[in-house]
Amino acid sequence: MAADPAAYKTNVPRNANMAKLQAGYLFPEIARRRATHLLKYPDAKIISLGIGDTTEPIPNVITNAMAERAHALSTIDGYSGYGAEQGEKKVRAAIAATYYADLGIEDSDIFVSDGAKCDISRLQVLFGSNVTIAVQDPSYPAYVDSSVIMGQTDLYEQDVQKYGNIEYMRCSPENGFFPDLSTVPRTDIIFFCSPNNPTGAAASRDQLNKLVKFAKDNGSIIVYDSAYAMYISDDSPKSIFEIPGAKEVAIETASFSKYAGFTGVRLGWTVIPKELLFSDGHPVAKDFNRIVCTCFNGASNIAQAGGLACLSPEGLKAMHDVVGFYKENTKIIVDTFTSLGFNVYGAKNAPYVWVHFPGRNSWDVFAEILEKANVVTTPGSGFGPGGEGFVRVSAFGHRENIIEAARRFKQLY
Amino acid sequence: MAADPAAYKTNVPRNANMAKLQAGYLFPEIARRRATHLLKYPDAKIISLGIGDTTEPIPNVITNAMAERAHALSTIDGYSGYGAEQGEKKVRAAIAATYYADLGIEDSDIFVSDGAKCDISRLQVLFGSNVTIAVQDPSYPAYVDSSVIMGQTDLYEQDVQKYGNIEYMRCSPENGFFPDLSTVPRTDIIFFCSPNNPTGAAASRDQLNKLVKFAKDNGSIIVYDSAYAMYISDDSPKSIFEIPGAKEVAIETASFSKYAGFTGVRLGWTVIPKELLFSDGHPVAKDFNRIVCTCFNGASNIAQAGGLACLSPEGLKAMHDVVGFYKENTKIIVDTFTSLGFNVYGAKNAPYVWVHFPGRNSWDVFAEILEKANVVTTPGSGFGPGGEGFVRVSAFGHRENIIEAARRFKQLY
Repeated sequence: MAADPAAYKTNVPRNANMAKLQAGYLFPEIARRRATHLLKYPDAKIISLGIGDTTEPIPNVITNAMAERAHALSTIDGYSGYGAEQGEKKVRAAIAATYYADLGIEDSDIFVSDGAKCDISRLQVLFGSNVTIAVQDPSYPAYVDSSVIMGQTDLYEQDVQKYGNIEYMRCSPENGFFPDLSTVPRTDIIFFCSPNNPTGAAASRDQLNKLVKFAKDNGSIIVYDSAYAMYISDDSPKSIFEIPGAKEVAIETASFSKYAGFTGVRLGWTVIPKELLFSDGHPVAKDFNRIVCTCFNGASNIAQAGGLACLSPEGLKAMHDVVGFYKENTKIIVDTFTSLGFNVYGAKNAPYVWVHFPGRNSWDVFAEILEKANVVTTPGSGFGPGGEGFVRVSAFGHRENIIEAARRFKQLY
Repeated sequence: MAADPAAYKTNVPRNANMAKLQAGYLFPEIARRRATHLLKYPDAKIISLGIGDTTEPIPNVITNAMAERAHALSTIDGYSGYGAEQGEKKVRAAIAATYYADLGIEDSDIFVSDGAKCDISRLQVLFGSNVTIAVQDPSYPAYVDSSVIMGQTDLYEQDVQKYGNIEYMRCSPENGFFPDLSTVPRTDIIFFCSPNNPTGAAASRDQLNKLVKFAKDNGSIIVYDSAYAMYISDDSPKSIFEIPGAKEVAIETASFSKYAGFTGVRLGWTVIPKELLFSDGHPVAKDFNRIVCTCFNGASNIAQAGGLACLSPEGLKAMHDVVGFYKENTKIIVDTFTSLGFNVYGAKNAPYVWVHFPGRNSWDVFAEILEKANVVTTPGSGFGPGGEGFVRVSAFGHRENIIEAARRFKQLY
């Protein structure tokens, strides 16, 4: 678009918070660089281990249920219009029974959504402009960017690569990727992702006990992103609600995206226990319900039929197989980088391998791998200054692509 | 939930904007009253002409396409993960070609979404807290409620039933449901819905010329909600972009919900022309793109396959048939109330009949019709103080229910 200084302009001021945002959102930016590379090398056989996008077909038991629901919508008896904004009763019940049995979470605490990213923004709208937040550093960029958009932050400070008024809780190999809470000032909200995107680290029970105690002592709310919980192989908790007392201080957001390949189908959920109260005693869930009713109209009914199938015995088995497949990919990537002498982190409990390139600039490494190996990764610094010197390699890919990428990594390094 | 004063509370302050909201969002409130009525009269044969929810099956040509896409997701070649946040290229192109041919709207001006309501909230997040808005009075409550949530308004004033710092543009039989713009102060944003929900009035070309001129003179942005455009029977414009100069001052939001019965499937779109600029010259579309990338991940790919089928020649014909069916319903309702001596409005260009009960309280009439005829309507005052004394009767219903409701109305009045 040509910038025409004579063009008509409205008198509506641009939202100053939008103007604070740096460059593009990380993943579209990576897509842009990939496209630029392809323009330069039209024949490049690019393998994408960047954006964390699932590649394997959705199991039949799940797509059959969605197709069936689609067909049913053409019948008088099977047609349904607006669903409950909070999600279909059966889906809420199945989520509660599958993931929160014995944890004291009720069906009505579950809000079905079109994905965790969307719910994070809805939660930010719920919290409003006057809260302070903390994030793991590095972390999934949607927490910080949505905070900036809602006006919770000050300007971006180029020298430290941080926004003002956000607490960045450094997570590094030195602290086992769990922040030193004794140095973290109180904030209203603590975004915490475990297994973590991008580091792949899953917090242990002991660590999560500390986190819940920290939140309780400070009167903070934890927004716990458990989108990768099914990838956990050890005895790390799969839900924050396994931790005693968490219901009074935590929200959990989750997704079918990485379990069933629903990145394009769009289905997730958020748990807000009735016990979670604002300082005036008002239940957080009550306000979130109002947000969901006013700003959302529920997830697609066809996607919800898919979610229900995911939670059937066959669906759960199929999802475990999908997760198992990607975990095998993870092992190939880990073995490759380890054999090359790199220190790699994560991977055991997550579909991400966090590879250390000490002293190097993440975007340089990203460019080097793209240029010389035609593999798209994600630069660690895109997740915060704590990610500098790292690159995230995603294990989402067809097996032959993972093997080929491993071969190219071995050629390159 | 028992209010236990001794319960643990976080120290996170409740968002003061959420606290400004009155009662529940209108439609869940109506669902609540309907449920209460059913508890009292478990055998009541309730007919719902309230919430504006579609009832007729989705045409096969559309559901077949969705089922096919669902099945394809189980194949290596047919699988797709994350789609473009802005919507699939084919869908954007089909929307541009079908609804905006010759209007100078490009594919890239179209953002595919999970529905107009969701896009209205995303637009509000885009605009931020420091803009002022105007709404038609009465109007679809999502405009006002999302404005309150974003902090654009002052407190609710019980005596006038309005929020402070919103301009309510009265639309009544006296002014032909088009506001007297000479009395409307400038605001940054003007929400304008045509054909209007709830009054059913469609603005004429002459009126929309005036509206665009008003916006241009004031440097305002019109958010034009055209969710009912396909219901237009006369020569009223179906898009604001039929009006010369609108591209510099308007956004249009639209939906498949009321054309194809997609209220539960969730698919809509928003058009933001590149020519629309903030006061500093920054394109509005560029910031909306950032919102969509950060707070949304695109509409469900299966729903998008449905949208594409909607826009095929067979799909368009099928949607016209669905719309035609509801328009016949509308006629039955209009004839009924007219024969009973009521003044009725709307209906010609919309699936809503706006029935006047002069001097009466809308909620009283709502309760009377529910209590005595077991028909759910929507009280006009739920759409703003300008709706007081009216009731909205929706034409979405199976034919036999519309006929039965008409019979009961005749018995009651």
